[in-house]
Amino acid sequence: MLSVSSFALSFAFSSAFLGALSFAHDGALPSPAAPVQSAGSLAADALAKERAAVERIFAAALVDYDAHRLLGGLLEAAPHRLSGSPGAAKAVEWCRAEFAKLGLDDVRLEKVMVPHWVRGEKNSLQRVGDPRPIPMLALGGSVGTNGPLEAEVVEVRSRDELTKLGERAKGKFLFFNQPMDRTQKGTFPAYGGAVWQRGSGAIEAAKVGAVGALVRSMSLDHDDHPHTGAMRYDDKLPKVPAVAISTNAANALAAELAAGKNPKLRLELSCETLPDVESANVVAELRGRELPDEIVVIGAHLDAWDASPGAHDDGAGCAQVLEAMRILRTLELRPRRTIRAVLFMNEENGLRGGRGYAEAHEKELDRHVFALETDRGGFAPRGIGAVKEMHAGLAPLVALMDPWNCGRLYEGDGGADISPMGPYGVPLGELLPEDARYFDFHHCPADVFAAVDDREVSLGAAAVAATAFLVADHAGTWPRTRIETR
Amino acid sequence: MLSVSSFALSFAFSSAFLGALSFAHDGALPSPAAPVQSAGSLAADALAKERAAVERIFAAALVDYDAHRLLGGLLEAAPHRLSGSPGAAKAVEWCRAEFAKLGLDDVRLEKVMVPHWVRGEKNSLQRVGDPRPIPMLALGGSVGTNGPLEAEVVEVRSRDELTKLGERAKGKFLFFNQPMDRTQKGTFPAYGGAVWQRGSGAIEAAKVGAVGALVRSMSLDHDDHPHTGAMRYDDKLPKVPAVAISTNAANALAAELAAGKNPKLRLELSCETLPDVESANVVAELRGRELPDEIVVIGAHLDAWDASPGAHDDGAGCAQVLEAMRILRTLELRPRRTIRAVLFMNEENGLRGGRGYAEAHEKELDRHVFALETDRGGFAPRGIGAVKEMHAGLAPLVALMDPWNCGRLYEGDGGADISPMGPYGVPLGELLPEDARYFDFHHCPADVFAAVDDREVSLGAAAVAATAFLVADHAGTWPRTRIETR
Repeated sequence: MLSVSSFALSFAFSSAFLGALSFAHDGALPSPAAPVQSAGSLAADALAKERAAVERIFAAALVDYDAHRLLGGLLEAAPHRLSGSPGAAKAVEWCRAEFAKLGLDDVRLEKVMVPHWVRGEKNSLQRVGDPRPIPMLALGGSVGTNGPLEAEVVEVRSRDELTKLGERAKGKFLFFNQPMDRTQKGTFPAYGGAVWQRGSGAIEAAKVGAVGALVRSMSLDHDDHPHTGAMRYDDKLPKVPAVAISTNAANALAAELAAGKNPKLRLELSCETLPDVESANVVAELRGRELPDEIVVIGAHLDAWDASPGAHDDGAGCAQVLEAMRILRTLELRPRRTIRAVLFMNEENGLRGGRGYAEAHEKELDRHVFALETDRGGFAPRGIGAVKEMHAGLAPLVALMDPWNCGRLYEGDGGADISPMGPYGVPLGELLPEDARYFDFHHCPADVFAAVDDREVSLGAAAVAATAFLVADHAGTWPRTRIETR
Repeated sequence: MLSVSSFALSFAFSSAFLGALSFAHDGALPSPAAPVQSAGSLAADALAKERAAVERIFAAALVDYDAHRLLGGLLEAAPHRLSGSPGAAKAVEWCRAEFAKLGLDDVRLEKVMVPHWVRGEKNSLQRVGDPRPIPMLALGGSVGTNGPLEAEVVEVRSRDELTKLGERAKGKFLFFNQPMDRTQKGTFPAYGGAVWQRGSGAIEAAKVGAVGALVRSMSLDHDDHPHTGAMRYDDKLPKVPAVAISTNAANALAAELAAGKNPKLRLELSCETLPDVESANVVAELRGRELPDEIVVIGAHLDAWDASPGAHDDGAGCAQVLEAMRILRTLELRPRRTIRAVLFMNEENGLRGGRGYAEAHEKELDRHVFALETDRGGFAPRGIGAVKEMHAGLAPLVALMDPWNCGRLYEGDGGADISPMGPYGVPLGELLPEDARYFDFHHCPADVFAAVDDREVSLGAAAVAATAFLVADHAGTWPRTRIETR
């Protein structure tokens, strides 16, 4: 681009959007400063005080991109931090120390017992007679092979094909090769449509007598990274080993099978599940100035898959929660209610941190007015997802972030870690960033620091800080709603 | 993230947004299928036909990410394509051939004469006595140094400091070191606030008797890439050489000056401006089925700075225009009016393609109903920017793209190439993608193919195709508005 003046163009709101603001304003009044307004008559400056706070928060997040610096610090201190690992313990300690540096209230560890799965020394998949490794990772929780396991391969590309297998997969590897559907409107629905293969592949394989499950990586890219992730067993069925192979490897294997070749593969895994280990959620607070017993939780998860630095998932979320607390503390924006930062342990393979938090705090969950998770990557934020019941009050507040292009309110029901609070009536929400690139990095070695843009992750931190502050500072009451655990 | 079911969450619109749809619908009726509706009473399926077309367009763009493939083809054929260069000629030919393959109507080259500036062999900046190169690029259009040029440095960090220089810069290099302001709400306003240094640095340097201008790169990053770009001379003043230095180099130089050191720098440039060269805009059409003489232009620019592959600027735009035409042709979505794709030459340093197009087509500009440019990088699209006069009719159409998170309508006045049509009353618009990362890559060697995400650039192509189709297929008339050339 050449023109100088064209860049000064301001992203003014369309009249359509201004319409939206007043339309949404038909529920609980969001502004402590504003007099009661009827729908459609919201004065332009009714939210002046809130708007000023949002301006300060975003400016603080953008001046030095501290969220990015914090992410770098976490990844340097704990580049691998699967639950139960020494790295996870380092992540706990590093985040505790960062909160302590900020002078927050009641910085503490809340103990939880977590699963301790280890990948072990042996991790190989190859064609028998062909020493070239097929890029793969055991799925988290998989059993080992107890020595090399050799078998032929049967492919399925859908649930439908699975039901028609009959005896064909008996004694073979069952190869789940249904790609994520790129034509889905978002990448999360595309993931949702394909991830049954990873989650249930070992169970389905056992049902048809297969000796193991090979799962096409959950990625929209064609690349050589295997993407690991959680899987389940059914205690009533044999436990067979399950691995993810890269999308390129899946395509190559499918081409071989389509060409009538019948390769025998050799898999060797020494992964195993050890006894549970003590770990912790890391908690820190900015105590409310008027209603300190009422709580807004902002959360992310500390753990990450062992074969990935977890920069987007969920190092970015941890950095954003840390940065949100830093900003509010530094700007002395102490809201009416308490903001509690919770960095959860064990989101990836057990949710013990999320469950443990809900259990330990059961008696005060009726005073948790909102829980907001950030666990969709450090990409440019689009807006906030929240349960419908919050929308009337939340829409005009979230809309204050629109100048930074993250003022949209979507329907959503929060992230995994906060989901155990749903049945107690805690309204749930989450930061929703741009999703196009998320699954390129998800649960794989490519999820590195350099994949996270400094400005994008910082904008997300500001959105977390602003949303938490506005909800916690709100003069009225917030509705409650019960969401069953997923 | 662990939970399977949480990913199936659909990004449903908030009630706020549904309000916006009906609010915006108070102007010319956008839908050929819909009966006349009063404001606020738009039936849910009034735009069913348009919605179906948009669904098909996005699915076609996402299934194979062809926009990304086209971008790769262009960058392979013409990795460097500054106006007048052999690479620019290759880009013209490659794009012409791609349009021809699609079986479009009247694929043609429209000749324009373009400036021919060459960087030459010598490009060095260093401290006298220190052989380490300072990362730099001559600004486009700069004169050479005619042998080594040695001088000390005087720094200014604002326009205000410039006015107070007095005689201090006489015989020295004037070092423009005002950073882009990260706390601006968008990166384009941040650029707009700093780019005077690059555009006018040589003029300002000459005014105060400096022998050359060193300009801090227009980037929000701290990196080692110099970012080049256009600059101007004043024919009444001496023409002094002007270069961009990387932001890291600028910080280092500023630190040296602040420490009281007084380094002498040696600059050598052999760049020069040669006689104008014949080049061309590349044009192809999808002839309208009812009103073929009425035209919707979609445009991008072929040329890119010589020291950059120009993947985002504006290879991505060219690929999106090519892909938009491919999609509409393949789906047999032939609209009422003609869609004319124009790949403009010489946006970066002369705008001869844009000016030449407006001149050559002056007699039919009263029948140009809309011109849409894509020149803000291949990032995830947010929406469309357009002149206010278009908003009433355009808002409900653009909102159809909201399921892909690009349905917002912003105020805007189009890109540089189409700006010469503004004074003729052609309503202007542009694709507006996410902007956080744009200036990390802008006009520098980092603007490579790998910096463009396949899904993001494809979503933008779909947005261009859908917007062009809906405007061109609109049953009513579109307003006209006069915009002076910037």
